[in-house]
Amino acid sequence: MAENNIPHRLYLHENEIPAKWYNLRAGMKEQPDPMLLPDGTLAREEHLYPVFCKELAHQELDATTEYVDIPKEVIDIYKVYRPAPLCRAYDLEEYLGTPAKIYYKFEGNNTSGSHKLNSAVAQAYYAKAEGLKGITTETGAGQWGTALSEAARYFGLDLVVYMVKVSAEQKPFRKIMMETFEAKVLASPSDTTNVGRAILESDPDNSGSLGTAISEAIEVAVTTEGYRYVLGSVLNQVLLHQSIIGLESELALKRLGEYPDVVIGCAGGGSNLGGLIAPFMRDKIAGKNDIRVVAVEPASCPSFTRGKYAYDFCDTGKTTPLARMYTLGSGFKPSANHAGGLRYHGMSPILSKLYHDGYMEAIAVEQSSVFEAAKLFARLETILPAPESSHAIKATIDEALKCKETGEAKTILFGLTGTGYFDLNAYDQYNKGTMTDHIPTDEDLEKSLADLPQIGI
Amino acid sequence: MAENNIPHRLYLHENEIPAKWYNLRAGMKEQPDPMLLPDGTLAREEHLYPVFCKELAHQELDATTEYVDIPKEVIDIYKVYRPAPLCRAYDLEEYLGTPAKIYYKFEGNNTSGSHKLNSAVAQAYYAKAEGLKGITTETGAGQWGTALSEAARYFGLDLVVYMVKVSAEQKPFRKIMMETFEAKVLASPSDTTNVGRAILESDPDNSGSLGTAISEAIEVAVTTEGYRYVLGSVLNQVLLHQSIIGLESELALKRLGEYPDVVIGCAGGGSNLGGLIAPFMRDKIAGKNDIRVVAVEPASCPSFTRGKYAYDFCDTGKTTPLARMYTLGSGFKPSANHAGGLRYHGMSPILSKLYHDGYMEAIAVEQSSVFEAAKLFARLETILPAPESSHAIKATIDEALKCKETGEAKTILFGLTGTGYFDLNAYDQYNKGTMTDHIPTDEDLEKSLADLPQIGI
Repeated sequence: MAENNIPHRLYLHENEIPAKWYNLRAGMKEQPDPMLLPDGTLAREEHLYPVFCKELAHQELDATTEYVDIPKEVIDIYKVYRPAPLCRAYDLEEYLGTPAKIYYKFEGNNTSGSHKLNSAVAQAYYAKAEGLKGITTETGAGQWGTALSEAARYFGLDLVVYMVKVSAEQKPFRKIMMETFEAKVLASPSDTTNVGRAILESDPDNSGSLGTAISEAIEVAVTTEGYRYVLGSVLNQVLLHQSIIGLESELALKRLGEYPDVVIGCAGGGSNLGGLIAPFMRDKIAGKNDIRVVAVEPASCPSFTRGKYAYDFCDTGKTTPLARMYTLGSGFKPSANHAGGLRYHGMSPILSKLYHDGYMEAIAVEQSSVFEAAKLFARLETILPAPESSHAIKATIDEALKCKETGEAKTILFGLTGTGYFDLNAYDQYNKGTMTDHIPTDEDLEKSLADLPQIGI
Repeated sequence: MAENNIPHRLYLHENEIPAKWYNLRAGMKEQPDPMLLPDGTLAREEHLYPVFCKELAHQELDATTEYVDIPKEVIDIYKVYRPAPLCRAYDLEEYLGTPAKIYYKFEGNNTSGSHKLNSAVAQAYYAKAEGLKGITTETGAGQWGTALSEAARYFGLDLVVYMVKVSAEQKPFRKIMMETFEAKVLASPSDTTNVGRAILESDPDNSGSLGTAISEAIEVAVTTEGYRYVLGSVLNQVLLHQSIIGLESELALKRLGEYPDVVIGCAGGGSNLGGLIAPFMRDKIAGKNDIRVVAVEPASCPSFTRGKYAYDFCDTGKTTPLARMYTLGSGFKPSANHAGGLRYHGMSPILSKLYHDGYMEAIAVEQSSVFEAAKLFARLETILPAPESSHAIKATIDEALKCKETGEAKTILFGLTGTGYFDLNAYDQYNKGTMTDHIPTDEDLEKSLADLPQIGI
């Protein structure tokens, strides 16, 4: 069914992997509000050194360098699993009867099963290059922890992963996967940190949250000689590394003579979305295109669509600097029936600013409709998508059906961030009809937002 | 580290997918002994019609057509996930310090996670084209059942899968995966067939075997209107479809100016090995090369290395025609501690004949050494290999280390048949040091071989 010789899956040659990441901030007309220390003063690079290795602290605050060289050692690993394919969803288009052209960038073709590896190898490389002994991190659904386990093992770094307890219990195989790459995996809250012990003391059955796991991982990093902390989303440095997704997509589309009218990505902390849209948003800000950029988030964790644009902590323990972002409050936890990732209380400060300034749209979708889209996609495209990615599939299908109504032959690009091999319990619920949706009430959100720090408001 | 611009992963364009499968039998100097009915008379195409759809019955017995057109509808699906990449294991070479060049054909880049989809889509297509309502099959480790679920769903066929009970219990996620593609999955032995009920009556705790599951699936197929049976390995038709692996490998290697000195593949029923070696063995038989072909089987299920070359039933219930093959006896079951697939009692008649005539070598390896190789590979190549595939990795590493000793820069090609996402319990055992090996005693094998049918001996 391929038309104009556009293949179902286009793989660039490894020599076409971009040599530089693109720093989305550098092209923004207005900068995101700066990171602040908890006392309200400006966070500088050196303030971050206890937490991040130096090069990553630099990248975190560097708002001016447009293109950053990707180290040769990182390119060497990218070549083992990249370029990731740009796929044309011919069968989905035909099934929907839409005039739209649907492309997706598939980032699941590596063992970690998601795009997270792109930043994991970069962060592990910089840590190793600085002579560190080990790193710590948190993981929720497990994609980031798995990716970082791979990367740390590759570079010979020790790794301690704090895994949100409810995920660790629901996803034992994620834990085994990380252990297969020699990572030490601890369920969070744990009794190995002050933060964890305090939480367990007041609430022994606490099922954990990303925010708590972050607090624990940071505590260990700053108190252990030769260790630093790394994070898989939200941060500016992560969006920088993930720009490889968008840059490859841009190049592959150009090869096909295509340019997207709409770019759609799921949004949890923003790592995939920020990476996917980077070059397209660069051109939009510069007035070179008029595309639509759509963030898709879970209705059960709706930071863009129902959160507040305010300074907040990045963790539950309130130990991190403050970022101005769309947030549900650092104590927010999505309902226990929420499947997969996209469960963070905040959102990338870069994306938050772009959304606030009207460069992006955001929608929230319920998970039962997400799994319906996921199953249709699996059947037609031979890929079982991760629940996270399936948020973008759901929105893409809706967009393509609108095109069917209007007759517009739009070119849609969405990010297929990963595979769902570790989410089969959620698929099982959906298959059996026992999956439920949960939308936080206004009261829920008022409560979690009541706790925002009184800074910069 | 890529030299001569040979990429880590070479993807051909979808228009380069071979238009025809290669029928390995057609080039053989001596044919495998013919399939016989249980009474010892020759099986003809029409004898197979109650079990297989007509085109597949034809392919099963066709020893003369060298190249078989791949139907357009099958090519259309191949294009969604093929060509599969030919990979160069630079990091593994460097780690081993070998002068050998190691290539592998990676067949895990589809949701089923293995090469099995290549034959599944072909068999499902022919069944649909003949107007059938549904198909039945068996699955052990679950790769075949998953692949066929995808294929059946794609073509809109009903599917009933008999899954070896011990696997169904160890791998609940495989079952969910199949159900996500709307397959009906039953643990075998079951109470839904005469064969199953008879086994359960004499042995209520019977944990199942591939042979039993085959018997059940065939019984349902031949007694249900509009149903036929399909099988994922062993059969001649399956090797025909899987030749796509070897043909793509040959083409990709040619593009790189390479030709293998050694081709290595894991061997259970022979579907991957027979497909991988097809064009290389074609040329070897024709005297155009002098390559080594190595089958790697589990020491716990050693049909090539310790089985008997004799006529045997393909199932435990003794309902199928008889094939002359290397067999451990149709009642053989590998020890319960055996992980993954490669647990069939017999071996492809085509490969059995080639082995018998000296065209191939075979070795047996123990699973703890296989998982050691698997973990090393995962660390270096960012792919978590299936246990089955890891048998070939183990043999490849040993071959590359021999090259290190001798200084020979051999070109090795092995088949990386799939991913290990559903085998993490086995990885967990290996990680924890609780994995054990099991080699059947001579007495075990004498016992299971004592039951061979007294035909053609």
